[in-house]
Amino acid sequence: MTITIRKIDPLKIEEESFRIISEELDTKIENPDDPAYKVIQRVIHATGDFSFFDNMRFTPGAIEGAIDAIRGGKNILTDVTMVAAGISKGMLAQWGGRVFCNVADKTVAEIARKSAKTRSEVAIEKGLGENIGIVAIGNAPTALLEAIRLVGQMEEKKRPLIVGVPVGFVNAAESKALLHRDNPLHITSLGRKGGSPVAAAIVNALIRLAQQ
Amino acid sequence: MTITIRKIDPLKIEEESFRIISEELDTKIENPDDPAYKVIQRVIHATGDFSFFDNMRFTPGAIEGAIDAIRGGKNILTDVTMVAAGISKGMLAQWGGRVFCNVADKTVAEIARKSAKTRSEVAIEKGLGENIGIVAIGNAPTALLEAIRLVGQMEEKKRPLIVGVPVGFVNAAESKALLHRDNPLHITSLGRKGGSPVAAAIVNALIRLAQQ
Repeated sequence: MTITIRKIDPLKIEEESFRIISEELDTKIENPDDPAYKVIQRVIHATGDFSFFDNMRFTPGAIEGAIDAIRGGKNILTDVTMVAAGISKGMLAQWGGRVFCNVADKTVAEIARKSAKTRSEVAIEKGLGENIGIVAIGNAPTALLEAIRLVGQMEEKKRPLIVGVPVGFVNAAESKALLHRDNPLHITSLGRKGGSPVAAAIVNALIRLAQQ
Repeated sequence: MTITIRKIDPLKIEEESFRIISEELDTKIENPDDPAYKVIQRVIHATGDFSFFDNMRFTPGAIEGAIDAIRGGKNILTDVTMVAAGISKGMLAQWGGRVFCNVADKTVAEIARKSAKTRSEVAIEKGLGENIGIVAIGNAPTALLEAIRLVGQMEEKKRPLIVGVPVGFVNAAESKALLHRDNPLHITSLGRKGGSPVAAAIVNALIRLAQQ
């Protein structure tokens, strides 16, 4: 079996990947500079999965709101450390923003144990006070449900964008359907698929849009 | 639209997810305790994607070798911090093993810049000397190619298992095809799909098998 490894400058790999994605996509993209398409493209790049082209949803103003929040130095809150690990923190820092994830805090574990909540759920509550512009949830449906509830209680102009893309078989699709129905400012992927790289890819695409 | 969120004890979510996966799988599993199936099930759980049932490949002895390595206190090397973040480090530590990832090292960035290699690639070379039992690659085809090359040069009994599941459009499928053809001890997912959660899920399944 002959296997041909393409010789390519490491700095060109991302650009070439995006070219292949646009080329292979069944749907013709009328405007390749559409910010929503930029986000979707980065998600497909992170997953190798074209089904995100059909799954993803953006509410009006979600991308613009996120760009303003990033440029305004607001912080990003994630449900799990894998999402935090995947975000381009150096690029975000140029406007002063930081990434918070409280899931490994000892106090969070203790509160979760006592209240029969998940650690991710407790960690979201703890983090929302930190001048958060984007809440990025890539793993835990429970964290997304808690984010929907708590953000819904916030003053309207203080509400962060929810990037809600938990993955899995128990309440992932349901929590995203609820987000899509009830929350006026969100980005999501309907159905079971999602995950940490999807959440990180969406946030990283938003950071790059903020930079343009 | 009525959306029903299932009420379920957080500690039971994983078990229930695994039940749904077995139930919905097209193929009847003759032996649900088959270690390879346990690994595949955890990957599907992490991705919401049943295509991994068909994509995944295990060489003979790969799982047994990994279990021995984990129980023997060997370390795990990852290509990117997202994979490291997803591994159950507390569980691994009971046998003395640790997780290494050198991609954020300053010296690694410098060597990469000077040698036109990717940071992941340089980080793999730097890490292989650390009593590594498993090399887990979830992101960078370049890192997988470097791991195949360097592990192939090692003394046979010192060779770590390669969990090679990079994702993407440039050399991901090709590097995994090469791993599958040339490396006698590996776990992979053929084609473009893979990623950090896939790599972490495989390693976490192996850690759980070691614990049984």
